[in-house]
Amino acid sequence: MHRTGFSRLGQRTQAPPIAWLMETALGRPNLISLAAGFTDNSSLPVAETREILQEILADNEQARPFLQYGSNVGDPELRRMTIERLKEQDRPSPGVEDHYSSENVVITNGSQQFLYLLTEFMFDEGDLVLVEDPTYFVFLGIAQSHGVRCRGIRMETDGIEIEHLAAVLEGLKREGELERLKALYLVTYCQNPSGISTSVEKKKAALSVLRQYEHAAGHPIYLIEDGAYRELTFADQPKIPSALSIEGDRQRVLFTGTFSKPFSTGIRVGYGVLPEPVLTLFKRLKSNHDFGTSNLLQQILRQAFATGRYQAHAQELVQRYAKKANWMRSALEENFPQECVWPEPSGGLYYWARVPNTIKTGMGSEFFKTALKHDVLYVPGALCYAEDPTRPLPDHEMRLSFGNASQEQIHEGIKRLGDTIRSFL
Amino acid sequence: MHRTGFSRLGQRTQAPPIAWLMETALGRPNLISLAAGFTDNSSLPVAETREILQEILADNEQARPFLQYGSNVGDPELRRMTIERLKEQDRPSPGVEDHYSSENVVITNGSQQFLYLLTEFMFDEGDLVLVEDPTYFVFLGIAQSHGVRCRGIRMETDGIEIEHLAAVLEGLKREGELERLKALYLVTYCQNPSGISTSVEKKKAALSVLRQYEHAAGHPIYLIEDGAYRELTFADQPKIPSALSIEGDRQRVLFTGTFSKPFSTGIRVGYGVLPEPVLTLFKRLKSNHDFGTSNLLQQILRQAFATGRYQAHAQELVQRYAKKANWMRSALEENFPQECVWPEPSGGLYYWARVPNTIKTGMGSEFFKTALKHDVLYVPGALCYAEDPTRPLPDHEMRLSFGNASQEQIHEGIKRLGDTIRSFL
Repeated sequence: MHRTGFSRLGQRTQAPPIAWLMETALGRPNLISLAAGFTDNSSLPVAETREILQEILADNEQARPFLQYGSNVGDPELRRMTIERLKEQDRPSPGVEDHYSSENVVITNGSQQFLYLLTEFMFDEGDLVLVEDPTYFVFLGIAQSHGVRCRGIRMETDGIEIEHLAAVLEGLKREGELERLKALYLVTYCQNPSGISTSVEKKKAALSVLRQYEHAAGHPIYLIEDGAYRELTFADQPKIPSALSIEGDRQRVLFTGTFSKPFSTGIRVGYGVLPEPVLTLFKRLKSNHDFGTSNLLQQILRQAFATGRYQAHAQELVQRYAKKANWMRSALEENFPQECVWPEPSGGLYYWARVPNTIKTGMGSEFFKTALKHDVLYVPGALCYAEDPTRPLPDHEMRLSFGNASQEQIHEGIKRLGDTIRSFL
Repeated sequence: MHRTGFSRLGQRTQAPPIAWLMETALGRPNLISLAAGFTDNSSLPVAETREILQEILADNEQARPFLQYGSNVGDPELRRMTIERLKEQDRPSPGVEDHYSSENVVITNGSQQFLYLLTEFMFDEGDLVLVEDPTYFVFLGIAQSHGVRCRGIRMETDGIEIEHLAAVLEGLKREGELERLKALYLVTYCQNPSGISTSVEKKKAALSVLRQYEHAAGHPIYLIEDGAYRELTFADQPKIPSALSIEGDRQRVLFTGTFSKPFSTGIRVGYGVLPEPVLTLFKRLKSNHDFGTSNLLQQILRQAFATGRYQAHAQELVQRYAKKANWMRSALEENFPQECVWPEPSGGLYYWARVPNTIKTGMGSEFFKTALKHDVLYVPGALCYAEDPTRPLPDHEMRLSFGNASQEQIHEGIKRLGDTIRSFL
């Protein structure tokens, strides 16, 4: 028997790059990892979670429903709180308030599961998705696993370059490929990996350009807005409304966010806000996956919201990360050669640093191996770029996480990287 | 625009039958539902869960990892406990002890997610799976959504009819369809819906027959063993080992079980036991879905195991369901006409009752509508049968759940159904 008997999806699905990185790191006790996107361990809300559980499990009778199956789409009160939080953040004009209904909210196992389900019911093998250049590498993995082709749209400091988006769409139209294009995927807040937040003007412009090509495509082209890092926006940054707030375009916006990163990554609860008919499809698929996200986890979040603990914790976390970002910036300024550049992140967990073009930073590069020899690990920039045949794969960047590293580790890790860069110049 | 822009999977995926049933039931305050597979509400372990959480979250420092991402494949200690429990239940002979390694265990969001992932990486559109006739209807929904064709294998009181399995395989070989056949799916303990448990001899015979057709298929043909209801086997029933215990066939057995039903359905934790190369593929896919099941939920189960609370609760639950099954049996004997038959379930939550052939019980039938008019709801048997073009769809059965109904509801619900049957004779 020469065949495996597995599906094309099964055969295509690759190990996540982070798994390779972690394997690479095994057996190196002195390694400083600036690779993993773990949140700050010491900030995890143990006391809050303990109190919440004491409160919600206090009464045997009242607590029983929390240990039973919930509804497939999620707890109604948590869905209501989710939409209220979005309204607070978006401050929508009265004309678009009907974009914000708890009926459109679905609770998921983190925003990751949302992205997975969306990919499943939106894309057939060979379909196309537009992504930022660079973008969230796990989404690239999901797309690759489904046989979905990606095209990268160049980034500016406030989001994608709209002219490039238009040019790519025009090119796809010319090539007769527009029919295969289903969506544009944007990580709009403190983007992973670049740290860039997309302005609302860019969101509006992107939606408008997509609309112009729908007729030629013969079907809707959606904007998938991934707001996973929104609540980790630093306090001194402008508050940017989501694309849900844009008048007239509600029917094309598929928004996702998460409560896991701002509260606890061990409590996996995220959400999506979806218009019809996407909402109906999503619910069906969610039911096939798991009948709904664990009810107990949803009740923890609901109580965290109701008591203000969630909000307080998220605020504290943002301050902590801002401080850690400062440590990393100082370390970069002190240790990286002048030829390197890194945009200031608007929040989140990462710096995105570019080295001179003479240095390649990829998994197989001499530079990567040398850095590892000096016991420091980063995410190679190339992993964050789609396999887009219309441009060479960029290979001169590093994603550097300050999420879980200590002050000392940040300083020492960046120093080791700086020394490595110098040795290659 | 006449097209939706959704994938074939998205367009195929249907609302789960249970959702239709629940909608049907809306606005009927006096309805007695014998349809839902909910576990007994009053049995849910609130006090145990509260104590467990107090224990595991007592120390801020020690508890932090529980609120962080876990590993993709699951908590190592929970995986070890899972395999130990399986060994206790299977009592494998020394020759097959290496079938039981915690390395082969993956933790999932209930066994439901396991079935979903397995379907994804095993089946392409148009592929074939063999199922029991009848079988678990949510699996049928997943298969249908993926465009997988099903063929039903007739059931006897101790599992599938091996001769029929052989005949179906021979037929597929003749038709040149064997290449498309990937697996046989069996719900081996207290089957949902029939209540039947499969003997180990039948498991062995099934594996042996499948092997004989692998050469012609050109790839492995797997046995998917769904043991979701195993821990709900009534105490007076024989203890049947899983197919993992069968010598020589470990490489073809994909076993799944769950901790949710025996403990708390709001705490969604299940598992699979997989041989290579399936294990590696499964891990990759799980990573794309959600990076691993919520770590906090896994820690709850781990502590429930370690302290014996899980085992004690499962035992108590089995006694409770045995009692409820007795209530339903008495009600059936008292109220159903002699022409009806129902096998004794070996455990689980359901009776599977057959009415005379002159009565159809399907969703659109007069009988179903009349029962609903009398405020009683059941799962129509036809929903539990695959769309198999080689036989007409059986339509004379009902799945009757004693899971969450009270003694009074069980009695009154069965009485109403009995009256309805009589009125149709």
